[in-house]
Amino acid sequence: MGATQITEARLKEQILTLSCPDQKGLVFRVSEFLFEHGCKILDSAQYGDEQAGRFFMRLHFAAPDSSSGFESAFERLARPLEMEWSLFDAAAKTRVMVLVSQHGHCLNDLLFRASNKQIPIEISAVVSNHRDFEGLATHHGIEFHHLQVTPENKQEDALRRLYKTTGSDLVVLARYMQILSNDLCRDWSGRAINIHHSFLPSFKGAKPYAQAYSRGVKIIGATSHYVTADLDEGPIIEQDVERVDHTLNVEELTRIGGDIESRVLARAVRWHAEHRILINGQKTIVFR
Amino acid sequence: MGATQITEARLKEQILTLSCPDQKGLVFRVSEFLFEHGCKILDSAQYGDEQAGRFFMRLHFAAPDSSSGFESAFERLARPLEMEWSLFDAAAKTRVMVLVSQHGHCLNDLLFRASNKQIPIEISAVVSNHRDFEGLATHHGIEFHHLQVTPENKQEDALRRLYKTTGSDLVVLARYMQILSNDLCRDWSGRAINIHHSFLPSFKGAKPYAQAYSRGVKIIGATSHYVTADLDEGPIIEQDVERVDHTLNVEELTRIGGDIESRVLARAVRWHAEHRILINGQKTIVFR
Amino acid sequence: MGATQITEARLKEQILTLSCPDQKGLVFRVSEFLFEHGCKILDSAQYGDEQAGRFFMRLHFAAPDSSSGFESAFERLARPLEMEWSLFDAAAKTRVMVLVSQHGHCLNDLLFRASNKQIPIEISAVVSNHRDFEGLATHHGIEFHHLQVTPENKQEDALRRLYKTTGSDLVVLARYMQILSNDLCRDWSGRAINIHHSFLPSFKGAKPYAQAYSRGVKIIGATSHYVTADLDEGPIIEQDVERVDHTLNVEELTRIGGDIESRVLARAVRWHAEHRILINGQKTIVFR
Amino acid sequence: MGATQITEARLKEQILTLSCPDQKGLVFRVSEFLFEHGCKILDSAQYGDEQAGRFFMRLHFAAPDSSSGFESAFERLARPLEMEWSLFDAAAKTRVMVLVSQHGHCLNDLLFRASNKQIPIEISAVVSNHRDFEGLATHHGIEFHHLQVTPENKQEDALRRLYKTTGSDLVVLARYMQILSNDLCRDWSGRAINIHHSFLPSFKGAKPYAQAYSRGVKIIGATSHYVTADLDEGPIIEQDVERVDHTLNVEELTRIGGDIESRVLARAVRWHAEHRILINGQKTIVFR
Repeated sequence: MGATQITEARLKEQILTLSCPDQKGLVFRVSEFLFEHGCKILDSAQYGDEQAGRFFMRLHFAAPDSSSGFESAFERLARPLEMEWSLFDAAAKTRVMVLVSQHGHCLNDLLFRASNKQIPIEISAVVSNHRDFEGLATHHGIEFHHLQVTPENKQEDALRRLYKTTGSDLVVLARYMQILSNDLCRDWSGRAINIHHSFLPSFKGAKPYAQAYSRGVKIIGATSHYVTADLDEGPIIEQDVERVDHTLNVEELTRIGGDIESRVLARAVRWHAEHRILINGQKTIVFR
Repeated sequence: MGATQITEARLKEQILTLSCPDQKGLVFRVSEFLFEHGCKILDSAQYGDEQAGRFFMRLHFAAPDSSSGFESAFERLARPLEMEWSLFDAAAKTRVMVLVSQHGHCLNDLLFRASNKQIPIEISAVVSNHRDFEGLATHHGIEFHHLQVTPENKQEDALRRLYKTTGSDLVVLARYMQILSNDLCRDWSGRAINIHHSFLPSFKGAKPYAQAYSRGVKIIGATSHYVTADLDEGPIIEQDVERVDHTLNVEELTRIGGDIESRVLARAVRWHAEHRILINGQKTIVFR
Repeated sequence: MGATQITEARLKEQILTLSCPDQKGLVFRVSEFLFEHGCKILDSAQYGDEQAGRFFMRLHFAAPDSSSGFESAFERLARPLEMEWSLFDAAAKTRVMVLVSQHGHCLNDLLFRASNKQIPIEISAVVSNHRDFEGLATHHGIEFHHLQVTPENKQEDALRRLYKTTGSDLVVLARYMQILSNDLCRDWSGRAINIHHSFLPSFKGAKPYAQAYSRGVKIIGATSHYVTADLDEGPIIEQDVERVDHTLNVEELTRIGGDIESRVLARAVRWHAEHRILINGQKTIVFR
Repeated sequence: MGATQITEARLKEQILTLSCPDQKGLVFRVSEFLFEHGCKILDSAQYGDEQAGRFFMRLHFAAPDSSSGFESAFERLARPLEMEWSLFDAAAKTRVMVLVSQHGHCLNDLLFRASNKQIPIEISAVVSNHRDFEGLATHHGIEFHHLQVTPENKQEDALRRLYKTTGSDLVVLARYMQILSNDLCRDWSGRAINIHHSFLPSFKGAKPYAQAYSRGVKIIGATSHYVTADLDEGPIIEQDVERVDHTLNVEELTRIGGDIESRVLARAVRWHAEHRILINGQKTIVFR
């Protein structure tokens, strides 16, 4: 094994995520493989879902830069174990297409975090059915696309086209007030994150802050989740909350909620970009 | 006005809560009344519900001990203003009848807080459809009543009788797994507090932690509310939450949730006993 | 009294804050005064500091627009009670001069909240000893001033001059890494808010996140406070925290802390701009 | 390898914790060892401290019950790697000797959690320099020892003796208001947990809630840590906080703080009992 001959300068960091039916020896086999390929594990996390009998793992490791054949070799290990796996260059930035309507706090937050490198993403484009945030996008040097969305034409062909032409890896619905078609949800499965402005499953659907006000809850929240055809039912990635009281009206709940939305969405996008999220049926595993 | 002649030693602290249709001059009239009766306001809080056009107030004040006629005089002020009001001796302890089934964490918590005077209550009785906590009640010197509850006989007559004979002011359902009849809910309206083991309105009904597990939420919670005939829909008094993740199974969620339940219920009982809660339709005003 | 003749259209909202030695009848006298001047109290909050024997109050009320003589009349009430008081037009925006060095997250956050009216302020100017955020200020249409600060010349004359020429009411040190002189702290007393990047009094001084990392704390925080000559000892306005763990290095703590700083500073600025903060010696009263 | 012949019934769950100088292949070697000994990894967590060049790991696994020779075989792996390691039976309960003075909320909380199996511990004894909680201990069937502590005689010989005779694994200072000698701190190193009633490093020493009141902080907290000779400087295990405001006096801060203390101490004790804590110099690694 040439592992000891590898110098630091020639290493590159990679992230491997995998899931497969659970069985004895999985950690051993994967760590053996990495050791034999000269890799040093920097961080690993695993989870066995007993009910589903399924095993999930994320490994962050330093690999020799010259490891050609790594992927095909790993596939030989993975296939008999019925493993689904993905390998990512840890230094590569996820390209994110942001969809927004008329509430810009989440967009502003993502643009700022991307620009000061708090989240390892590049905003590939800002797309909107309104023109409110054209200036903001332009100020950040991001291309802006206005889509004339109507009840008859949701412009989904244009969305698909933009996703491709901008080389995007992820779609973020940062308060985008249009419902995507079932087809598009399916095509973007696992690659589209929405922020819902309530603590799901409370207050699904429209005007959650007005619903929260009417019900008199003492805490409000927000939820980021992968988009699925089943509206507001996609796998939850992250939630957060804030305490409220009887003195706050709907506008004030909305203002407080906006802050929660921004940080909940930012965390979800960061974890996705860092390949920390594995989808487990209707739920997510987040290796934080 | 004899106010200046009152010495500290002869003062007693009182709490006045009131609500009425909103109009100009309410704070003035009430504070004028108190001033003319030699009272010193120690704390006051108010809230005007613009939508409902209704005004709510809580005043904590020191009054001359000899203030006979205070209540009838206040009623003369209150009637033309269509005021609903209550006057409490701030030093008097609320007598609480606790109903419990087989989860004792909330009961244990309340017993401890009552005994070390963290909450200004006296537990008047512990009532249960099981015998699990007879020893705990007895250790604290509290009378324990076991009720043989069956689907046919919910023992509501016995409950009503115990409420009276123990001189109780408040009923607390500290994980009592029996549903009260509509009649009893109505009779105990505003005087019965339940703890629901979810962050309402999420996960109403049975087995909320199992529901939370299935949905894959990232935060769980508990809710204390006044009991109404409409199950899990009563006015919310307090809620709190705790962060959870994919590694936790239903048992662990239940354990974490138990802690939240204890503190959420303890806060609700304390605020009720301190006369800080005013019911405003389906909601509560909590003057914390 | 002409109160009843006032129509809604001619009302304007005002905020009165006051403090004085505590005594009986203060609420009555102030509410009587407002009633006699045709005002309707919309919200009021009070606090009596028993140790200090001092009373604090904030009243939000609707007054007849034509109320000339209001202030001189109130001064006649206030003087014998040794009352310190201020009256504000509730609709007027506080003009805020922001000082920043090379961390822009708080500045970006304030600019966004000011522009979308989440906080009732106008940023009057952005002043910096660096040029990093000139573009950001310009994008928002705010004047930017670069000051060549050196150890010998802190440019405090320029700061004072800018404060005046921009008509500012408040100075916000949004991660401004220069220490103000004692003289300037005194002159701006109660009108300058700093954000300190630790949960004070933990980790005073430089590099608080590095200190937090070394100590192995499990929660980090941020603190906004009024600036005083005694560094990091000014009256605390607001604090917030976030849970951390052993896996996070100093850079990651800094990133998480940045979010806390932004929201803690935003709350402090909003409460100041809404006249909710009264200074009580080394502490603050915040009527939220 | 006989692994496949092991039936579920003959497995037992074990927990292995280890630390050693970091190097390539550690996960591989440990997982290989477990695989060859017929073990199935149920959960594992690792952490590499880059600064210290040290690797930490916790493995929860199911092992064949008949695995005699396991420990000596593992020592052969461990020695050349300079590994410090411990092996625990996951089903065995940690025996905890609780020291308490006159504040009983933490003791009450631990007794309840131990009795309803929320924490995998057995309280081996309650020891106090007061008699306040003799009844509480007795009610739970726990032996109680009263020690006549004086400034001249801290009864440390008695404490050491009780620790041995009760077969204790862990000492918990549940608001024990006596300072242990340096010698005893050293002897109980890593086996004694204290709860400090402040958010360390804020407000070290006596009367932290009075200090917090004077400073006017907006959040208070509590800290559980391993006991070291350096008072209030031991490795922090867990912290938590609660929001407070200007209206709360020292007694109310103390009441709120008591709740934080109970839950912070309960978490620390549970994590210790579940072998989730590894000490890393002045800090802890908590594999939650």
